[in-house]
Amino acid sequence: MGNTFGQLFRVTTFGESHGGGIGVVIDGCPPKIDISDVDIQRELDRRRPGQSNITTQRKEEDRCEILSGVFDGRTLGTPIAILVRNKDARAEDYAEIATKFRPSHADFTYEAKYGIRNWQGGGRASARETIGRVTAGVVAKKTLSILYPKFEIVAYVAQIHEIVAKINRSRITMKEVEKNAVRCPDAAAAKKMVALIEQIRDEGDSVGGVIECVVRSLPAGLGEPVFDKLEADLAKAMMSLPATKGFEIGSGFAATRMRGSEHNDPFEMRCGKIRTTTNNSGGVQGGISNGEEIYFRVAFKPTATIAREQKTVSASRKQTKLAARGRHDPCVLPRAVPIVEAMASLVLCDHALRQQAISLPSSSK
Amino acid sequence: MGNTFGQLFRVTTFGESHGGGIGVVIDGCPPKIDISDVDIQRELDRRRPGQSNITTQRKEEDRCEILSGVFDGRTLGTPIAILVRNKDARAEDYAEIATKFRPSHADFTYEAKYGIRNWQGGGRASARETIGRVTAGVVAKKTLSILYPKFEIVAYVAQIHEIVAKINRSRITMKEVEKNAVRCPDAAAAKKMVALIEQIRDEGDSVGGVIECVVRSLPAGLGEPVFDKLEADLAKAMMSLPATKGFEIGSGFAATRMRGSEHNDPFEMRCGKIRTTTNNSGGVQGGISNGEEIYFRVAFKPTATIAREQKTVSASRKQTKLAARGRHDPCVLPRAVPIVEAMASLVLCDHALRQQAISLPSSSK
Amino acid sequence: MGNTFGQLFRVTTFGESHGGGIGVVIDGCPPKIDISDVDIQRELDRRRPGQSNITTQRKEEDRCEILSGVFDGRTLGTPIAILVRNKDARAEDYAEIATKFRPSHADFTYEAKYGIRNWQGGGRASARETIGRVTAGVVAKKTLSILYPKFEIVAYVAQIHEIVAKINRSRITMKEVEKNAVRCPDAAAAKKMVALIEQIRDEGDSVGGVIECVVRSLPAGLGEPVFDKLEADLAKAMMSLPATKGFEIGSGFAATRMRGSEHNDPFEMRCGKIRTTTNNSGGVQGGISNGEEIYFRVAFKPTATIAREQKTVSASRKQTKLAARGRHDPCVLPRAVPIVEAMASLVLCDHALRQQAISLPSSSK
Amino acid sequence: MGNTFGQLFRVTTFGESHGGGIGVVIDGCPPKIDISDVDIQRELDRRRPGQSNITTQRKEEDRCEILSGVFDGRTLGTPIAILVRNKDARAEDYAEIATKFRPSHADFTYEAKYGIRNWQGGGRASARETIGRVTAGVVAKKTLSILYPKFEIVAYVAQIHEIVAKINRSRITMKEVEKNAVRCPDAAAAKKMVALIEQIRDEGDSVGGVIECVVRSLPAGLGEPVFDKLEADLAKAMMSLPATKGFEIGSGFAATRMRGSEHNDPFEMRCGKIRTTTNNSGGVQGGISNGEEIYFRVAFKPTATIAREQKTVSASRKQTKLAARGRHDPCVLPRAVPIVEAMASLVLCDHALRQQAISLPSSSK
Repeated sequence: MGNTFGQLFRVTTFGESHGGGIGVVIDGCPPKIDISDVDIQRELDRRRPGQSNITTQRKEEDRCEILSGVFDGRTLGTPIAILVRNKDARAEDYAEIATKFRPSHADFTYEAKYGIRNWQGGGRASARETIGRVTAGVVAKKTLSILYPKFEIVAYVAQIHEIVAKINRSRITMKEVEKNAVRCPDAAAAKKMVALIEQIRDEGDSVGGVIECVVRSLPAGLGEPVFDKLEADLAKAMMSLPATKGFEIGSGFAATRMRGSEHNDPFEMRCGKIRTTTNNSGGVQGGISNGEEIYFRVAFKPTATIAREQKTVSASRKQTKLAARGRHDPCVLPRAVPIVEAMASLVLCDHALRQQAISLPSSSK
Repeated sequence: MGNTFGQLFRVTTFGESHGGGIGVVIDGCPPKIDISDVDIQRELDRRRPGQSNITTQRKEEDRCEILSGVFDGRTLGTPIAILVRNKDARAEDYAEIATKFRPSHADFTYEAKYGIRNWQGGGRASARETIGRVTAGVVAKKTLSILYPKFEIVAYVAQIHEIVAKINRSRITMKEVEKNAVRCPDAAAAKKMVALIEQIRDEGDSVGGVIECVVRSLPAGLGEPVFDKLEADLAKAMMSLPATKGFEIGSGFAATRMRGSEHNDPFEMRCGKIRTTTNNSGGVQGGISNGEEIYFRVAFKPTATIAREQKTVSASRKQTKLAARGRHDPCVLPRAVPIVEAMASLVLCDHALRQQAISLPSSSK
Repeated sequence: MGNTFGQLFRVTTFGESHGGGIGVVIDGCPPKIDISDVDIQRELDRRRPGQSNITTQRKEEDRCEILSGVFDGRTLGTPIAILVRNKDARAEDYAEIATKFRPSHADFTYEAKYGIRNWQGGGRASARETIGRVTAGVVAKKTLSILYPKFEIVAYVAQIHEIVAKINRSRITMKEVEKNAVRCPDAAAAKKMVALIEQIRDEGDSVGGVIECVVRSLPAGLGEPVFDKLEADLAKAMMSLPATKGFEIGSGFAATRMRGSEHNDPFEMRCGKIRTTTNNSGGVQGGISNGEEIYFRVAFKPTATIAREQKTVSASRKQTKLAARGRHDPCVLPRAVPIVEAMASLVLCDHALRQQAISLPSSSK
Repeated sequence: MGNTFGQLFRVTTFGESHGGGIGVVIDGCPPKIDISDVDIQRELDRRRPGQSNITTQRKEEDRCEILSGVFDGRTLGTPIAILVRNKDARAEDYAEIATKFRPSHADFTYEAKYGIRNWQGGGRASARETIGRVTAGVVAKKTLSILYPKFEIVAYVAQIHEIVAKINRSRITMKEVEKNAVRCPDAAAAKKMVALIEQIRDEGDSVGGVIECVVRSLPAGLGEPVFDKLEADLAKAMMSLPATKGFEIGSGFAATRMRGSEHNDPFEMRCGKIRTTTNNSGGVQGGISNGEEIYFRVAFKPTATIAREQKTVSASRKQTKLAARGRHDPCVLPRAVPIVEAMASLVLCDHALRQQAISLPSSSK
């Protein structure tokens, strides 16, 4: 259980980091949406290891194969299954972690939960699992673009360790984000971030940071009271990603230090529409979108896998030490940007379809 | 849709702030658990308006009636339905908000979503809805206590506006939390918080803050990869509460400024068990509990309803002004403490039953 | 678990035959649908005991109260909760069945499952639970009528014991069905059925039979492959009713004795539309409606509660005897007719909303 | 939507008859269950075309590949994904059905629902989809055998057209069923059935029949009131199979001609256990198993695809004719036997896990 996300646009992922492959089944996608493996591959390449010198240098090609649900380049309305094969890995590379629990990894908790685990790589807890999410996100974005032709979603790195970018949230485009390896649209900050990540990597350590995401041109009315509020489902989506420790929407934790008279977003008429003057709400009020920009921030911890030697215990319950081998990301954020966009798109597409379901023909009332 | 929470311990709430009443149906509760309306009433009284001079002075008795699912003081395994009647309210009190959208409330978004709304009070978006959650939380806590006899959950106010409490998280008991009206176990800070809330109230304004919650004595192994991670479900639960803007678990946003070598929680053997030396993970690794304390923090914005006059627009799309009438909470946090505990208990109870479902008899393997 | 039905139009029932009452929560109903307690009461009266001299003579008024989700006579889009109070019953009436398992009732299986049961009346297994279903069915029918203005659903008694009615399925109206106490639109057969039921009742025994249901003027395209086929969900709906033992759609079991060349429904053009010449499919092909009449049949066993003395065992596992006291239906079918219609409407309404969800604006493609 | 089955033991199938392949994802399977592709292949071979001269002579090897969720021959608790590749097919074989709707097939209804269809073979409506169900059924059976070591399930052909087998339901073993090509354990009837199917095939026609299934050694207590009754979920499972038109449990439609005094199953003490003297209930009372044999019957229509020429219409809405090419099953029942077993096992395994979830440690009460 727990491997399916969404009520109507339902995404089920499967696969361990080693074994046959990683995949996804998307059930509930509307028919006749153009989709091709080129569309999917483009996003997978944004997530791929080895894309720049500040990400892990592992070689993973991550070629996707559409197994079902698409015919002559269009969705059929039936489940869309997509598979990305794992590369053959040598089991002996994992001999050490087969018997030692990596600190702040899921090795110990999987063992505690299931009494068994695939110790080759991260198994199911590997970030490779997010391949399925990114893949489904492509289909979700396409669907949203058909429903709302001006729909836009852009995520970017807003902070790495102590380096905070200066960003005009409402102006950012994906093109600007993709201009540098760290995916931070503040060029000056980006340069410092890259330097910091390289330094940290050379020290055998890792850093975290904040990704911000902004969504534009969605209508008012998406989100379901009372449990499936838009911000609740976004929070769940983000906190289900590996390495996330926090989520905030709109004013977020800063709201705790404001007064109501400062924080409230007054309504005003603008270009004939009801709009808010400020947007501390982050585009959501009472769990439902109000037509303003939706924006939120996600906190990522520093990568757990580091080259430095750490204290841990073995499966046989002896105190021991462990230093990671192989090539790991010193900072997950650059590669997490497309994943954040994908998960947000899954949430928004699901709520868009839910809203369609209850919208009776206006002529009928 | 969206009014049901949980996979196995499934809670459905219903009701508007005005009309027949507010209620909850709990489906999936195990049989033979002792439950009485006294147990439920005790928690409802912690949530009730008018309980102290820093909460709203509205009089709402909130008496609960168990309609089904309990027989001779024990659960039957069938749906437990519980109803709290609304008091008769005078519709004329709401004449103004019938035609004006309150800033940072759900009036406008409900109208946008449904094309209709119950403008008497907050309707479905009223915080009265949380009565159902608190009620279900009582049953969840009882169930957890049967499964894990040492199970404890304690929430408390950790911050109001700029006032931050000093708290030894691992030592706090509910008794200490209940010692003052603001539910902050740091007596000195609590005193300042009460003074601030009274001052803010007198100024016709409002403030927000942070509630922290700690859970003790749960086993390792609760939580489901990959979407239904324990922290993901906790985040959703908290972000589905009125007035919340942020969630963080363990190190939270502070993790973004740490290095991996500082942040990782080394494993060690302690009293014959695998434990972590530090607990930046907040008791959860890879979405699954590791047996350490689970702790998380929730950001609440300042109450949207304030006595000061604010700019807004009317349903007929004219610019206008609005000042709240009646008696409102200048700060929701003291009353939100039992609600945070309730929602966390729902998540944990659901995951406890999910873990039971896949635990085959050990003799069978 | 198990007390919720439907994916989008979600119905949760609660309540035992004794205790606070029986009720239902409907989540996912579209907004702005006219609904009143008069509409609901009309259908509850068709289900009510004591409505004729061939039903049980118990007096149950079954007055409904709408608790939430309706405002000024229209649905709000929020959960619609409806409660029907139980009448006070004297527990001593149930002293005997508190300790003896009634044959072919759920007393023993509830005890086996939960280790506890409400032995006052049938508890949760009582047919009183269907009050919630009938209530929700009224809202479903209204919703379907808005989506498909010509939508019609009619159920009727087609067989009681050996008496089989002759019925022109495509012509039957509810008015004809309601003409006699047994709800069989073949007047001659109905007369014999009434006489048989009276005779059987006087002998302290019971009989079963078949209810047929026909649905007209639904569009082609409702139903979801592959598990949630329209006939699969109708089958589940009917087999979840008390006392049902079988379900068949279209040609049903008779299909097993036909050849493909006889059974297949050829397509033809009729009035400019693609129609089938025959309708052995029962309006559904591959799980999806084809625009023809949907019709199906449900087998009901004879009522388990009979006045005659029967062999059974006691809770203390002693062989004993039991004869039902009180007034029971000698035949459940007349009162089950509105329940069959209600459950079918729930299935169809749910699938109608599911189809709406994936129907993108045609302009968008 | 609609491609997932089960609440806790959740099975999602994907794939069209043409394209990348057919597959299944099983989420919620307990960990540490032995499973191998040999186990799965054995059941797939029972379903496979070309296994005898009364099934279609198409050559489909149907080799399964376990993609995830199994490690060193044991389940991990993570999603089990299994893929069976489609063989390359020549699209030109399907030129005719690309433009003509096959009578009593899903061609027209898919077109009506989605506005697009994969006209190569049956697409998603193809019986190839049941490969995923059979595969998941193997895992379900294994899980049930661990929970209930004496668990047995046997399905068999009970009737083909007018030929009805004489069968001692309680004695049948799978070995006897597998003795002949038609999977009917009455040897004399089986011989006649084979002869009839061969004759019908030579006439370019098809026949249907009845499959009966019996389940032994399940405990009392499985099944959930009120919607997810065991018979309701079994009915849904069976009516979701291609070509099914009816379902009955225990006495079934025959119950409609019995009196209560005949039909009720008296309780008695037998070998120290509460048992029923007769079993008209079919092992289920009030939706919950009572520990007796569960048995039910499923009606299959004659195969829709026949060699004889039939009337139909074209996609361009012209009257036309169609005769099936290629090799099709003149009778689906022999190959449907393992599919019925698989679907029943999915239902039972799901309910077994649901019952585990609410069974608190007895020491705790």
